[in-house]
Formats: sequence, structure tokens, C-alpha cells
Amino acid sequence: MPPQRDDFARELAWLRDFTPATRSSAGALPSLQGERLLVVCHLDLKMVPYFEALLSAGAEVRACAANPATTRDEVAKLLGSMGVEVPARKDDPPDRHAAHLLAAVGAGPTLLSEMGADATASTGGRLGTVRGGLEATGTGIARLRSLDLAYPVFDWDSVPIKQGLHNRHLVGLMAANTFLNVTGLSLYGKTVLVVGYGPVGRGVADAARSFGAAVEVCDPDPAASLAAAHLGFPTPTLEAGLPRADVLFTATSRDGAVPAEVLSSCKDGAFLANVGHTTGELPVQELRRRVVDRPRPHVERCDVGGKVLYLLAGGAMFNLAAGSGDPYDTFDLVTALMIEATGFLATEGVGYPPGVHPLPKEVQDRAARRYLEPDA
Amino acid sequence: MPPQRDDFARELAWLRDFTPATRSSAGALPSLQGERLLVVCHLDLKMVPYFEALLSAGAEVRACAANPATTRDEVAKLLGSMGVEVPARKDDPPDRHAAHLLAAVGAGPTLLSEMGADATASTGGRLGTVRGGLEATGTGIARLRSLDLAYPVFDWDSVPIKQGLHNRHLVGLMAANTFLNVTGLSLYGKTVLVVGYGPVGRGVADAARSFGAAVEVCDPDPAASLAAAHLGFPTPTLEAGLPRADVLFTATSRDGAVPAEVLSSCKDGAFLANVGHTTGELPVQELRRRVVDRPRPHVERCDVGGKVLYLLAGGAMFNLAAGSGDPYDTFDLVTALMIEATGFLATEGVGYPPGVHPLPKEVQDRAARRYLEPDA
Amino acid sequence: MPPQRDDFARELAWLRDFTPATRSSAGALPSLQGERLLVVCHLDLKMVPYFEALLSAGAEVRACAANPATTRDEVAKLLGSMGVEVPARKDDPPDRHAAHLLAAVGAGPTLLSEMGADATASTGGRLGTVRGGLEATGTGIARLRSLDLAYPVFDWDSVPIKQGLHNRHLVGLMAANTFLNVTGLSLYGKTVLVVGYGPVGRGVADAARSFGAAVEVCDPDPAASLAAAHLGFPTPTLEAGLPRADVLFTATSRDGAVPAEVLSSCKDGAFLANVGHTTGELPVQELRRRVVDRPRPHVERCDVGGKVLYLLAGGAMFNLAAGSGDPYDTFDLVTALMIEATGFLATEGVGYPPGVHPLPKEVQDRAARRYLEPDA
Amino acid sequence: MPPQRDDFARELAWLRDFTPATRSSAGALPSLQGERLLVVCHLDLKMVPYFEALLSAGAEVRACAANPATTRDEVAKLLGSMGVEVPARKDDPPDRHAAHLLAAVGAGPTLLSEMGADATASTGGRLGTVRGGLEATGTGIARLRSLDLAYPVFDWDSVPIKQGLHNRHLVGLMAANTFLNVTGLSLYGKTVLVVGYGPVGRGVADAARSFGAAVEVCDPDPAASLAAAHLGFPTPTLEAGLPRADVLFTATSRDGAVPAEVLSSCKDGAFLANVGHTTGELPVQELRRRVVDRPRPHVERCDVGGKVLYLLAGGAMFNLAAGSGDPYDTFDLVTALMIEATGFLATEGVGYPPGVHPLPKEVQDRAARRYLEPDA
Repeated sequence: MPPQRDDFARELAWLRDFTPATRSSAGALPSLQGERLLVVCHLDLKMVPYFEALLSAGAEVRACAANPATTRDEVAKLLGSMGVEVPARKDDPPDRHAAHLLAAVGAGPTLLSEMGADATASTGGRLGTVRGGLEATGTGIARLRSLDLAYPVFDWDSVPIKQGLHNRHLVGLMAANTFLNVTGLSLYGKTVLVVGYGPVGRGVADAARSFGAAVEVCDPDPAASLAAAHLGFPTPTLEAGLPRADVLFTATSRDGAVPAEVLSSCKDGAFLANVGHTTGELPVQELRRRVVDRPRPHVERCDVGGKVLYLLAGGAMFNLAAGSGDPYDTFDLVTALMIEATGFLATEGVGYPPGVHPLPKEVQDRAARRYLEPDA
Repeated sequence: MPPQRDDFARELAWLRDFTPATRSSAGALPSLQGERLLVVCHLDLKMVPYFEALLSAGAEVRACAANPATTRDEVAKLLGSMGVEVPARKDDPPDRHAAHLLAAVGAGPTLLSEMGADATASTGGRLGTVRGGLEATGTGIARLRSLDLAYPVFDWDSVPIKQGLHNRHLVGLMAANTFLNVTGLSLYGKTVLVVGYGPVGRGVADAARSFGAAVEVCDPDPAASLAAAHLGFPTPTLEAGLPRADVLFTATSRDGAVPAEVLSSCKDGAFLANVGHTTGELPVQELRRRVVDRPRPHVERCDVGGKVLYLLAGGAMFNLAAGSGDPYDTFDLVTALMIEATGFLATEGVGYPPGVHPLPKEVQDRAARRYLEPDA
Repeated sequence: MPPQRDDFARELAWLRDFTPATRSSAGALPSLQGERLLVVCHLDLKMVPYFEALLSAGAEVRACAANPATTRDEVAKLLGSMGVEVPARKDDPPDRHAAHLLAAVGAGPTLLSEMGADATASTGGRLGTVRGGLEATGTGIARLRSLDLAYPVFDWDSVPIKQGLHNRHLVGLMAANTFLNVTGLSLYGKTVLVVGYGPVGRGVADAARSFGAAVEVCDPDPAASLAAAHLGFPTPTLEAGLPRADVLFTATSRDGAVPAEVLSSCKDGAFLANVGHTTGELPVQELRRRVVDRPRPHVERCDVGGKVLYLLAGGAMFNLAAGSGDPYDTFDLVTALMIEATGFLATEGVGYPPGVHPLPKEVQDRAARRYLEPDA
Repeated sequence: MPPQRDDFARELAWLRDFTPATRSSAGALPSLQGERLLVVCHLDLKMVPYFEALLSAGAEVRACAANPATTRDEVAKLLGSMGVEVPARKDDPPDRHAAHLLAAVGAGPTLLSEMGADATASTGGRLGTVRGGLEATGTGIARLRSLDLAYPVFDWDSVPIKQGLHNRHLVGLMAANTFLNVTGLSLYGKTVLVVGYGPVGRGVADAARSFGAAVEVCDPDPAASLAAAHLGFPTPTLEAGLPRADVLFTATSRDGAVPAEVLSSCKDGAFLANVGHTTGELPVQELRRRVVDRPRPHVERCDVGGKVLYLLAGGAMFNLAAGSGDPYDTFDLVTALMIEATGFLATEGVGYPPGVHPLPKEVQDRAARRYLEPDA
């Protein structure tokens, strides 16, 4: 047995072993010689292979944190040692965080690759050096749409392979898995109420059923209700469903999906979790005022009019905040898609007219093909 | 295109095309030369290959109807033309039916192959010529257990491959299918209450869920309730479940499973069907007194205190009485099992001590192997 | 027991009992007084309630057959007796069929409700009396898009509630059900290859799995392949999948999806069926030249180079051509949607600019709400 | 917010919150005054409520470790502080472990409650003070059957509610969950081969399918193969299945289920895990000789003739050795069953004749009822 490498290096090596599509896409990335790329993203281990691909292709790369809370210092240091300019550190205070972005923008990037559109928004979408950008989040796309962009930006959030794998399957499965890990409890025989029946809600409902729960679905949209009913899920209103629900998951992308007023309808002992992007789907403030105990990490026991309610992960996106997010092998598809999108951006993409464009299907398909058959 | 053969012959040819395990078992059947076999069974097309196998092996064969209602005259005639002594015709009156059995018993059979144990029961299990028997039904086994048998009888009703395929899967699937065919309606979005959660009930619950129903399960046995709850089925009491149920299936093997008193709790417009062996699981007499219309074959509309209830197939076993029973390809396993059991009976089986015995696992396995790999 | 009404009347009464959303939508239909409606549709029993609603609302109504092969004479006569002008009869020859359409167009309709766009196409979309139309099929929409329309036409084919129920669930379930009914065989233990993984293909794959098949999926689109793989379906190429497939279903909407050249790769004894809209997905001509027997209705046995292949329903849409199409209760949603769409068309819709428009979501939602809660 | 209690106390309090059936059974436990109970079990947190119930009922209680490796010192200390005589500590060496058992036996227990039958086996089943016992494991039951017992012992391993929940569902779900946690990888699109299709294997196959895997099943028993085929699982031989399997789970209860010779047929990069009771199902010694790296806890990378294979949890029972075993809420049923069994043993049970008996169904049902409706 050889001596063990340190944990971080081992984890990165493990990640590499299960990201063959990333490797394949990286190998086919056109030259980025002469490009100055600004990447605004979560500075997490899973992003390392993306940066490696950019550097290999000859780009000059700067990175800013999409959210200081998610920055992993080891990752920032590793990227720095590889030649990426990345001053961010975990929990940078707002002024430091802002200064980093300002400096990065000031360095005159030619291409942007963003999660949340901070760089574009902070420059009104008119930064003169920029020839084009990529945006990975629905929130970012919404911000971009309100700007008079001077360059094309490609939306790869809503592409079918990302929606179809991540949103439709992974979030739900990881949420159910995280429930087991965080509570030490099963879903067998429990009634789970899924609030919101978009792709994420569908995944949660399917996963909860396969984990043994009796699942009900609540969505005010009649077409969504119909879709749930066709799979045998009862579709009560929120008020009618709450008194039966042992566990509630919100997945609506809508603040106030579960208003504070309905808490009194909840079943005694119910668990409340959110898997939508916004922390405001559950009445977090109301619940937080009534916390009486923190019996386990990510679990807060609240007393609401004499009833116990458990708030999970403080109402933040449960599978991420209390779990490990996407598995490495499935994130391989996401990274391959980012690399393909970057290669496309630097070549054909910059020739598109200013404004937001969907990432062309043939670019998506290239990533999907590499993921399905990395050796082909 | 060659000219078409007549329908019956075509159907038989079709059956033969999809029963390779039967053919394989028949080819390996030991000689039955010198044996006089009395077969008491449903005189249905699917039984023809069994008789052919017996005749090929040199047996002298007589047949009686297990139930005059299920006798198909074309089958009886065909068997007769092949050399089987079979006086039965469809809907023979009780005295004729009894006379046929008496004559068959009087002919001094050496081996019995029964469905329901009529021949054995009518002779107290002491017919001197008989060296051994087979029995295919739970009802028959119950009758046999009360007798002081003079010969061994092998029970092949409760063998895992019959229970596991027929009871666990086919009955449920065919019941759901027959519901579509008989009512012209789907199960999408309907609440289905399954009363009785043995193997048959499990199959019905699974099939109804996969046909789009919200399924609930009612079984007084707590272990059965637990098993249902682990798959996410709510488990109300009968009284609590009835007001929600659009469709009710009984599968309890127990007369009076749904007593007449609870009919008033049923949902207006509910469909009531039974897939258990006994017609008495539903309160058929009570319902039949209240029939106001027969809107479709196998459907009776009843008025129960101002509510409409639909009785399906008169409360008889729904998948058989209103549907076509087992598919040909899966019945192949049943026939192969009958042939293997007969071969075993005539050789080793007759040496067993008197009484009821389970059919040995190695005999079952032979049939299962031929079914899984008919060409091996 | 009252005397039984005749079969057609009983069937219509049964249909009415299970179409409460239709009744609810009909009750809310605005006055159509003064409108001359031309309906081009399948003259099937299920369409009767739509015509009744139109007449009740005061419209003058004419009907033409969308396809003479699907016209049911009893329906045409009934509609005639109700006051609809409908000369069509089953299997009208092309010239008669054309003459009916010509006469109907000549009568100067003010509104059109079509399945296939024959009336609009035959007048180049410029008929002066017409103020607006509805179109129910993808084929019709494609025809409309090539015309310079003088009026607005609303597309209700691609609305989520139709796609999500009919395409995603019903076609697949009814195809699996029809396979059992037509062949007398189960899908247990069979390998089913689904070619094409759009909504219909997904429904077929799910249904086949729940009927006990080992399902594989073949779709050249990598995003579709990924989606199938995420549900645990192997995703071979057509050539790699065919030698294992006991049953093949095409659902691609693409002629030549299974080219004649690959027939030699099929497994001996395989069944070939199509559930896509076009009969050309399977190599029907090639197979038809090799038919050696017609062992059952809708089943043709072909000899392809010494191998037996079974062509089902002549390659036409299997669930319709060999089965009964949508159940009555689920068609209720379709009819309610047609009525809501017609009411919208006659009021707000005619004010839209010329061209093809999606049916507004609020109109869809009205139908969905009535279907979910007909009494609300 | 009150100050947080220490972790162990919090965990115990959490456990208590989710074990209402245990509480209910404990409340109904008959007096054990005058009984000296010897409990041989895993000294794990989940066992604490059982001991509390025994003490509350007035018993004098001693405890020995069923396996020194699973002893948790905090648990042993807590039990000691409550009045249980329990000298065991984690990883006691064999001589200390043996001495503890000897002392406990020497103290003259009147009742035994065992997991593995060490106390009974070490005294030949003839210890004079003992009036009866309970045994919780299949291994223990096998040992008991070879002894000439002087007292009755009740087997509660094979009771349906334990088999049906724990074996059939929990092991499979927790194994799939543990795979995610231990490897950081998903099962999406992977081919999982389940070797052994008893209740545990069925649970693994269902869970793996619901986690997105293409599942195949291998079991030499034809009845088991048939059962798997009816659910659409391909059923290759081990040799035919291995080259396709990305992940293999053994669940056969048979040493040598995967012999060393077939390792060369494995797919490069395959993961090998065992969920059966015995560590010998996989060729652990052969694999351990070829370990080249330990990239993550519970993961060993082996080089087998140039191919990489990953051995998980060293071939020990994966869900326990690398995961957290049963969730607290479902273990509630197990504890309630133990308490009911102990109450029965001390009253009626001791009156049974010597030998092994199944735990009567009414005792099981009492536990199941408390679990289903703890407040009833």
C-alpha cells in the first residue's frame, strides 16, 4: 500500500476518476489563447476541472466567488497555485467581496462565465472589453433580461439536459437521502406533502414515494395538479393537506409559498424543508422566532402554538445546505456542458447579436454525447 | 396468403406458438402406458396441450368439468376426437354433471389430476384403484385435509412459482386491464381501495398505482397493513376508506369481507369488484336486489339509498368472469408445471405415504427452468 | 328492471355519466347565437357532447369528417337528427368527401373547429366569412403555418394538459393494454424496445415496465437518451437493441424510424407496433410483402429471411387502430377543453390578429379546473 | 434558546422522540420482578430503551456484547449508571469478552434475550436457572437447532413484520443511500447487478431502480429468477452479468457467492459491495491482496489483472459497516417487538415445552399495532 495522499488531494483525484466527459470536453476545447476569462462561480472542489480546462486552453483566468459562504479556501488556494487570479476566501465580508469583483472587472475580461450575473449586472451589461458571456442560473438570467446588454450571453440553465437530470431527478433524490442522513429517520409510512410540482417537485414526489412515503402534491396550477393526479398522487389544497403531512417539501421558486398563517394547520411533529432556490418559500422568520431547541445539526425544533414543528436547514435549499449537492459523476455532465459552452462562446458565440440567447442544442448535445459515451 | 383456418383452430395454433415450456415438458414426460388418468378441470382451450401431453405419453384419459359453466364445447369435442373420454358440455345440469363424475370414477382411474377435488371428495379419498393425485386449488386442498386419504395427493396450488407469478402479478394486472375494457374508463386520478393485502391484493395495488390511481389498502392484519404502509399506501379502516373510494377491489378470500352494512358509507358512483376466489366477498345479494340498470355487459347499476353503486361481474372473480384470465404465454408455466407434476406423480410420487404433500421443489424448478429457457 | 335501451343509446348515456367537466363547460358556454360553426372532426361517439354544447348555445352547426374511415354512421345520423348538417357517412369515397367539405365551406362559416385543417387549407386560409378557428392536431398546425391566414387560429394540440395526460400517459397505457387484448400475451419477462423517447415514448416505457417488461429505449437525441438512462432504461442503438427485443414500439413521429434494412437484425418472433401518428414509422410495405398468415385480428405474421415477425395493426397507430383509444372519463378533459376554446374563440379570440396562436393558459386552466372539480 | 445538552444525551432524547411504540409496549410490560435477565446484544444507542423497559418492570438485568466491535462505551456506561451490570467495552479482547459472558452466565439468569445465542451455546442450552429465551438472529437460531435445549426459546428473527420491513425494504434503501454517501457517486445510468433475490435482494433491486440504475438480477434458483423477470429485471448468469455491472451487491447469505475466479469477468471500475450477513459472499481475501489505494473511507481500490475494482466496506454488511443501519423510527418496531416478546416470554412463554418456537403471531401483532397507532 502506498502512503495516503492528503484528504483534499485524494478527493480531487477521486473526482477526476469519475468525470470522463469533462476530460473529453477539455481535450476538444479550442484554443483560448489571448482570452481573459472572468469566472464568477461557487469556489467548490467540483469546479476545479473547469478551471484546469480553461488554463490548458491558454486562457488568462480570474475567479470571483458567486457567494462568499460557499467558497472553500483549499479550492481558492489550489486555483491560485495553478495560475488563476482568485483573491476570494470563505466568508469574505461584503466590502472585500465587492472589491474582488471590482478588481476583476477592472482587469478587462474578454469573456464572462457566471453564476448569478454579478459581473454583468455591476457593469450594466456594457463593459467594453467583453465579447460575450455565459450564465448558469435562472436568477442571473432574470437580471440579464432587464439590462441593455452590449454583448451576447448564452443561457445554459434551462437546457434540457440540465433540467432533465439535475432538476428532475437529482434534487429530489438527494433531498430524500439528506432527510435520512440529517434526521436519522425514514420516510416509510410517513405522509409527505410536496408543495410545487415543477420538475423539482416531480423529482421529490417520485423519490419520496420510492423511499416509502404516501405522497400528496399541492400546486395551484391546474395543469400541474392534473399531472400529479395522473401518477396517483392526491392533490389537496395546502390547507387540506397540511394536517396530514409528516414532512413538507417546498419546491415552488416562490417566496411565501407556505405563508405563516397556515402553520397552525400543520401536524404536530411535522418536518418542514425547502428544495426551491429561495429561502423564503417557508415562513422562516416566523419559525425562527419560535425555536426552542436544536436537537441535531440542521434541525430546529419550533413551538408553534403548542405544536412542535421541525425546520430543516433553516429553510435554505435542503439538499445543498444540509447535504452534499450533486454527486460527482452526474456533475460531470454539468462541467462538460460548461466547457462546451465556453468553447462555443469563444468561437461562434461571440458573433451572435447582443442579448440573451439559449445555448444552441448542438452544443448541449456534444456534452451529452461525451457523458453517455466518454470513450467514443 | 393461404386461406384462413377456422377461428378455434387458429386460436389453438396461436396458443401452441407461445407455450414452449409446455412442449419441452411434454417431450420429457415419462411413459404413462398403462395408467388411467382422470382429469377434473376447466375444459378451456388452454388445457388442450396438457391433454395432448398425457395422450402422447400413452395414458388412457378421461375428463370431467370442474365447473359446467366454464366448459367450452369446442374444447370438449376436440378432446373427444383426440381420444379423451369427455361427455361434459357447457352448462350441464347438476344431475348430468354428477353422472359424468360417477361414470369417470367408476372406470377405475389409477391417477387423478384435479381442480377442486371433486373426484376424491366424492369417493372419500378411498377409491381403491387410485395410486395418487394432484390438486390445483386451495379450495380442493382444504377439502382433502378433512379426508382420510388412501393415497398421496400433491398440492401444486401454493408452489412459489404459481403464487409468485399468477397470484402476485397476473391477477392484479388483468383486473386493472379488465376494468378498462369493461367500463371504458381509466383509473387515472381515481382512488382505488384494495381490501385484503395478500399476494393478490399486492398485485392489484401495484397495478392500480401504475394505471394512475391513488391507492389505499385495507387489511385488518397489522403485519399486512405495515407492509402496505412501507410502500406508501395509506391504510385506513374499511369504514374510513370507503367514502373516498371510486373503485373497490376485494381480495381477501373471505366471505363477507365487505358487509352489507357498510354500503351506505360508499362514495356515490363507486365501482365494486372482487378478485378473490369466492363470490361472497362483496354483499352481492344486497346489491342485486337494488339493480336499476345494466348499462354495459358485466356492469350493474344499483341504487343504494339514493347513491349509485356499480357492481362488476356480479361479484364473481372479475379478471376471469369479465376478462380473459391468464395470458397464453404465462399459462405456459402452469401447464408445464402440471405436466412435470404428472410425470413425477406417476413415477416417484405414487411411492409417497398417503396424505397431502407439497409438490417437491425440484419438480417446480424443472418447470420454471423450461419456462425461463425453453431451448436449454 | 326497466327494459334495456338500445346499445348506441346506452353507450351514449354511459359516456354522459362520466363526462362531468364537459357538462360543466357546456353550461358556461357563452351564446353562439348568430354563429355558423363548421366542425371538421372524427365523427365518433365521444364527439357528440361537443356538438350538443354548440347547439345548446345557439350556433348553427355543420360537420365534415376529418377522415371518412373513422366516421360512425350512427353518430352522423344522431347529429343530423339533432340539427347538425352532416352528410358524411363511413368510408365515403374521396369525391363525396371532397364535395361535403366544399358544400360546408360554401355555406359561409363564421368559426372553424378543425382536426387537420382541411377547411382552412382548401381555402388558403382566406375564406372571407371566417372570423377565427381552432386546430387540434400537430399535422394541422404544420399546414396552417405555411398559409397566409386572414384570421386567427388557436392551437390546442400542444397545450400542457393535453400533452401531459393524453400523450404522456394514456397512449402508453392503452398501447400496453391493447397488446394484451390483441395478442392474448403478457409483457412479463419480455424485452420491449421503445424507439423514440418523447412524451409518448416515455409513457410507453413506463407502462411496459409496469406490465412486467424489461424495457430499453432507443433515441438518437442525446438529451432524450440521457433522460431514459436516468430512469434506469438501457439505451442501445437500434441495431444493438433489435436482436434482444421481443416487442418493439415506435413513437418517433418520423417516417422510416425503423428502416427495412434493419429487419434482419430483429429477434425471431418479435412483435412490431407503432404508436406514433404516422403509419410509416415501421417498414410496413416491406413487411406486408412478406405476410404468410393472419393468425388473429390486427396480427400479421411475416416471414423475413426465415424469421417470424408479427406486424400489429398494420403499423397504424396501435392503441387506436386495434384498441379503443382514450377512455371516456379522460376524454372528458379533451371535450371540456374544446368547449372552453370555442367559447373563447367566439368572444375574445376573434379579436386576435390573424395567424396561429397558442390557446391562452387561462382557457386551458378553466377546462382543467372543471375536470379536477366538476362540482366546484 | 436553552443551552444545548451534550451530543450523546441529545441523540438519546431524539431517539426517544421517535419511538412511541417502544414507549407504548414498555408501559404495558408485565412485572418482571424477581427475574434475572441476561441480554446479549449490540451495545448500541438504539438498545437503550429496551433496557429501560426491563428495569422499569423490575427485572435485574445483565448485558454482554454480541460483538465487541459494535460496543459503544457511552452506551455501556449509561446502562451501568442505570443499574445494568455491563462490564463490556468497545473492542474487548477475546479473553475479556469471554470472561464477561462466563460471569453473566454464572450469575444464574432466569431469562435470556440474545442476538447470536452465545449464552445458550456456551452452556449447551442446559443452564439450570434459565426458564426461557429469545433469539433475534438467523445465525443464532441455527446454533440453537443443534442443541438439546432444556427450555423454550422463541425465534423473532423470521417474523413477518421484521422480515417484511427490515429485510425487504430497509436494507435495500439504506444500501443505496450508503452508496451515495460513501462514494459521492450516484446510481443514475449505472448497471447494478444484484446477486441473490431473497427479500433483501428484492429490496436492493427496487431501491437501485428507484435511484436510477438499470438493474439486473442473478439467482440460481429458478423461482427467484422468475420473480425477478416478472418485474422486468433481466436475469443473466453471474458470468454473463458481470461484464456489464458497474455496481454489484451480494445478498445471498452464502459464502463464496462471488468466487474469486469470476473477478476477471468484472467490468473495469466496478464497485463490489455485500449486504448479506456473511462477509464471505465476496472474495474478500483475494481482493484484499490486491489493494493499491484507499481513496475514501470504506473504499479500497484493487488491481485485478490490470482492471480496477472497488471493494466497499471490506465486504462486510455494507449498510451497517459503512452506514448507520436502521433509522430510529423504524427501529421502534423492532424494540417494541423485543419488549412484547420479553413480556410474553416471562408469562406464557416459559410454559412452552423446551425447544425453538416461532414467536406467536398475536405477540407480533401487538407490536405492529402499537407501531401503526401508538396512541390507540
